[in-house]
Amino acid sequence: MAEIETVPSTYLLDHSSDDYYNRLVVVAVGSRKSLLKAIMRASIRAVQLIDMNKHKGQHPRLGAVDVVPFVPIENVNMEECVQLSREYARMFAEECNVPVYLYGEAASSPDRRDIDWVRKGEYEALGDMIARPERKPDFGPAKAHPTAGAAITGARNAMVGFNVNLGTTDLQIGKKIARALHGAKGGFAAVRAMAAEIPQKKEIQIGMSIYGFESTPLHRVFETLRSEASRYNVPVTGSEINGIVPLKAIVDAASFYLRLDNLTDTKILETAITKAVKARG
Amino acid sequence: MAEIETVPSTYLLDHSSDDYYNRLVVVAVGSRKSLLKAIMRASIRAVQLIDMNKHKGQHPRLGAVDVVPFVPIENVNMEECVQLSREYARMFAEECNVPVYLYGEAASSPDRRDIDWVRKGEYEALGDMIARPERKPDFGPAKAHPTAGAAITGARNAMVGFNVNLGTTDLQIGKKIARALHGAKGGFAAVRAMAAEIPQKKEIQIGMSIYGFESTPLHRVFETLRSEASRYNVPVTGSEINGIVPLKAIVDAASFYLRLDNLTDTKILETAITKAVKARG
Repeated sequence: MAEIETVPSTYLLDHSSDDYYNRLVVVAVGSRKSLLKAIMRASIRAVQLIDMNKHKGQHPRLGAVDVVPFVPIENVNMEECVQLSREYARMFAEECNVPVYLYGEAASSPDRRDIDWVRKGEYEALGDMIARPERKPDFGPAKAHPTAGAAITGARNAMVGFNVNLGTTDLQIGKKIARALHGAKGGFAAVRAMAAEIPQKKEIQIGMSIYGFESTPLHRVFETLRSEASRYNVPVTGSEINGIVPLKAIVDAASFYLRLDNLTDTKILETAITKAVKARG
Repeated sequence: MAEIETVPSTYLLDHSSDDYYNRLVVVAVGSRKSLLKAIMRASIRAVQLIDMNKHKGQHPRLGAVDVVPFVPIENVNMEECVQLSREYARMFAEECNVPVYLYGEAASSPDRRDIDWVRKGEYEALGDMIARPERKPDFGPAKAHPTAGAAITGARNAMVGFNVNLGTTDLQIGKKIARALHGAKGGFAAVRAMAAEIPQKKEIQIGMSIYGFESTPLHRVFETLRSEASRYNVPVTGSEINGIVPLKAIVDAASFYLRLDNLTDTKILETAITKAVKARG
């Protein structure tokens, strides 16, 4: 992680990890070339440090560098992110001899768009899976790296992590509510949701990932969750943003509830200043 | 207005005017010295252009440069804004021979904290009022400028302009709702509210200024307004931010409605980037 900040024009915005998942999540921004260099340095370090044969954790994973998604912001578009992910895949496969799969917008087949399909069986099954023709890696050898497994990279839209806590200890209720929201179970197409116990709080948390907050805004997910919870007389006790959220997702939520018709970032002091300074050059 | 952008390190963020008020409102940011220079240039131009003897408008005013409030942001505090306003008052009075009053946090007496007290009688009564000992200007002659009247400057916290539209054409209902919110009539201490007709829309607008959105957040004002309106079966049809709003006011609103516990600007992509870039220097 420290490697990221050794590259000029690349900035580490957020990182998180926990024992339960045993997984480090890093958010960095940068200009194209310097970001690529920073991610390469961090990836090489991860391969040096992590032995997948000794790795345990609740979150599905395929290797030491599990997934590197490139997300378009500002003046970078999705196509450029696809190109960046392909470039990263080629460099990382060459440098570390690790097989690399492309997913999301960079996927080389429809199946591979879905990261769950790519990760199927996880690291433990990788030795068998990778030999199948339909699972040939996009870059690198068709053989798991002895300690680092395989890596996944690609491009996708910004994801918003949104966790909502419920005033109940009944995990079954939590699971029913999560299913109501989860796209693959009939919920919002852009939402993945799962329920988990928070033992220290005696609460249930619905952990959600929203892929595409513009078409599936936070307020709609939240109000649907609240409505489902009320069916069981379970109150919402709080919520949190997991990781980094684009400003527009927050502006959209405030605009929905306050019925604001015209709020854009040119009306918000901080972003208006940034824009004005940039415009002057 | 164009004068503002002629000074380096000063940025025009917003401006608005309308025939009804016949008043130009300008929002600019800048480093202390350059901002002072920009406001001086704009003030001198206003004195050259505006003859108060021919001026009409619905908004109360005392002169061609009616009021110049300095608002602390980022690493500038209120005390520095008070100093800036005093410096501006001295320079403007000397340069243009216009009497200047200090108000808000810069006021030289408790009465003068309130801009309505300072503006009493408006430009038309200024000739008489200014001769009274308790209304001696803080800078400049104790005599109205023949075309520019008098000016008011001072320091205050950020003000949020928040207009809410109601689905009714009954101005009396609008006035009752405005009174319920207006601090001086028993409403929120930090809120000024007035009702006005929007003829082109066949609606009533409650125009509000919130002085201190941290202690009187937008959501509380909005929910109170909605509750009062429901008493008359009047729906809220929309709302708008008038001018520039600090990001925290929007984050606070989203956090209230979504029950977010931990949203700070380090978790918002755009502001996190600005901070990270600044920290690197």
